[in-house]
Amino acid sequence: MTRVCVAGVGVIGSLFAAHLSRVAEVSTLTRREEHARVLREQGLHVSGRAEFTGTLDAATTPADLPEPELVIVACKGTDLDSIAARLQGFWPDATLMTVQNGIGADEVVGRYGDWKLLTAVTFMSGTRHADTHVQYVLDTATWIGPARGTTPADAQAAAALIESSGLRAEAFDDLRPAQWSKLIFNATVNTVAALTGLPHDPHFAAIVRPEDLGRLVRALMDEGKAVAAASGVTLRDDPWEMNVLATQRGSAHYPSMLEDVDAKRRTEIDMITGALVRAARQAGVPVPLHETMFALIKGKEASWE
Amino acid sequence: MTRVCVAGVGVIGSLFAAHLSRVAEVSTLTRREEHARVLREQGLHVSGRAEFTGTLDAATTPADLPEPELVIVACKGTDLDSIAARLQGFWPDATLMTVQNGIGADEVVGRYGDWKLLTAVTFMSGTRHADTHVQYVLDTATWIGPARGTTPADAQAAAALIESSGLRAEAFDDLRPAQWSKLIFNATVNTVAALTGLPHDPHFAAIVRPEDLGRLVRALMDEGKAVAAASGVTLRDDPWEMNVLATQRGSAHYPSMLEDVDAKRRTEIDMITGALVRAARQAGVPVPLHETMFALIKGKEASWE
Repeated sequence: MTRVCVAGVGVIGSLFAAHLSRVAEVSTLTRREEHARVLREQGLHVSGRAEFTGTLDAATTPADLPEPELVIVACKGTDLDSIAARLQGFWPDATLMTVQNGIGADEVVGRYGDWKLLTAVTFMSGTRHADTHVQYVLDTATWIGPARGTTPADAQAAAALIESSGLRAEAFDDLRPAQWSKLIFNATVNTVAALTGLPHDPHFAAIVRPEDLGRLVRALMDEGKAVAAASGVTLRDDPWEMNVLATQRGSAHYPSMLEDVDAKRRTEIDMITGALVRAARQAGVPVPLHETMFALIKGKEASWE
Repeated sequence: MTRVCVAGVGVIGSLFAAHLSRVAEVSTLTRREEHARVLREQGLHVSGRAEFTGTLDAATTPADLPEPELVIVACKGTDLDSIAARLQGFWPDATLMTVQNGIGADEVVGRYGDWKLLTAVTFMSGTRHADTHVQYVLDTATWIGPARGTTPADAQAAAALIESSGLRAEAFDDLRPAQWSKLIFNATVNTVAALTGLPHDPHFAAIVRPEDLGRLVRALMDEGKAVAAASGVTLRDDPWEMNVLATQRGSAHYPSMLEDVDAKRRTEIDMITGALVRAARQAGVPVPLHETMFALIKGKEASWE
């Protein structure tokens, strides 16, 4: 039987850990000792789209866990360095899979060890009601592609394992076209929402009057598309079309960066806009508008630090 | 004796009206009938740097006031159109002086009548404690220059009148070099503060690291300086030096646009960044960063409308 460790047990980590415990031997790496204790004693309950309680191991250090074949690094982008540092020196034969927003999460983790790496992006969502109870809300897929030291077959194996557990997953020979589409979309929609206070609503697609917000959204996406093209990435979906389509749905999505700003939490700007700006520099493409959004979000973070 | 009408009796209007009542026959144009009544009955008390009560006339329509030689339009930039509309058709021989932030206030007012116009910008400040009581805090000057139909001598006469009342004033043959310096400064500092939540503090002058906020501040000011140059304006003060100097003072200034955003009030963006963007279009100078700030502040206003 496969052994999987889920590192970081928030909403996404809880959904992975509980579901996978039905088809694999699952351990979880938590930050708090109390969290590990209740998971070991009570298991992890899933409600919503599924209804069951999974049994799993849990600890605050890898030293107390069995060596897994697959590690799903499921923390927020802002905790990536600290969780990778805790894994440093452990489990050299394991494959680590990152599922954070943006791009470059696998590279961050890869700095802490020679593990084989898979890169993924997840669209599923849930609500965490307690340390031992997560509600499964949106059953959208996790997309997985090969990264350092792995092949498309490794991505397919991981996707097959996740699918067998009751979650949705899809493997790609190259994740970059999908990941970059989402990156450009997020670098734009998340920052514009966080700075204006608007949820992702029809303002984002309005381009009739000269001052309409959609013009800024489109200009930001055009900058992002130029970076993708110069980096040799053919986008899977056009970010502007994703934007127009999303704003035509009934209810306006409340982007996570706007939630972070409301709560005066550190945002994922470094993994999203930061990654795009770094890629732009590497490709020699000017991105003055994304640099502006980056500086403003950093300034916002500084205002409550 | 000179007759002066002060249109708009907030902090700035109250300071002008009370002081000028000591050397001129002053009337005030208020929005609320109750405000006019208490001003007529109790006069207008000044505390702080001066201590006296001025006597003046007050009404909610020009029809109920004596015809003045000088009208000081002292409302906020966002109320300019509505106050100019109320003056429309009255007092064709009067000179109207605007004192709003940004540029173009005189042009807005000029659309409502053929009055002679003076353009001014004021740096004095106070606190309004009641309809009949204003505290005079900062005794910095009002700068006055000629506009439509007026000469430097007219600006000097207005400055002399204001000086004789106990306020500080200075006349310029051409106000544009000073006004544009302040415009570029405000278009940058006000919007960056309003979007980040930071008061005007040392973050605005930091340019060491690539992500430092001062780089955005400088880039915005460089765009503004290019517009000034292309418009034939030689700046009186360098906005970046004004910025560095201001952030080196002990206490951080809390810009008015940040106050507006905190209170979810409509901002003066149209008279400040809006005016700069319009001038840039006229001069054929690209200002993508100021257009970004404009769209974001407009989006912020839309978020609470």
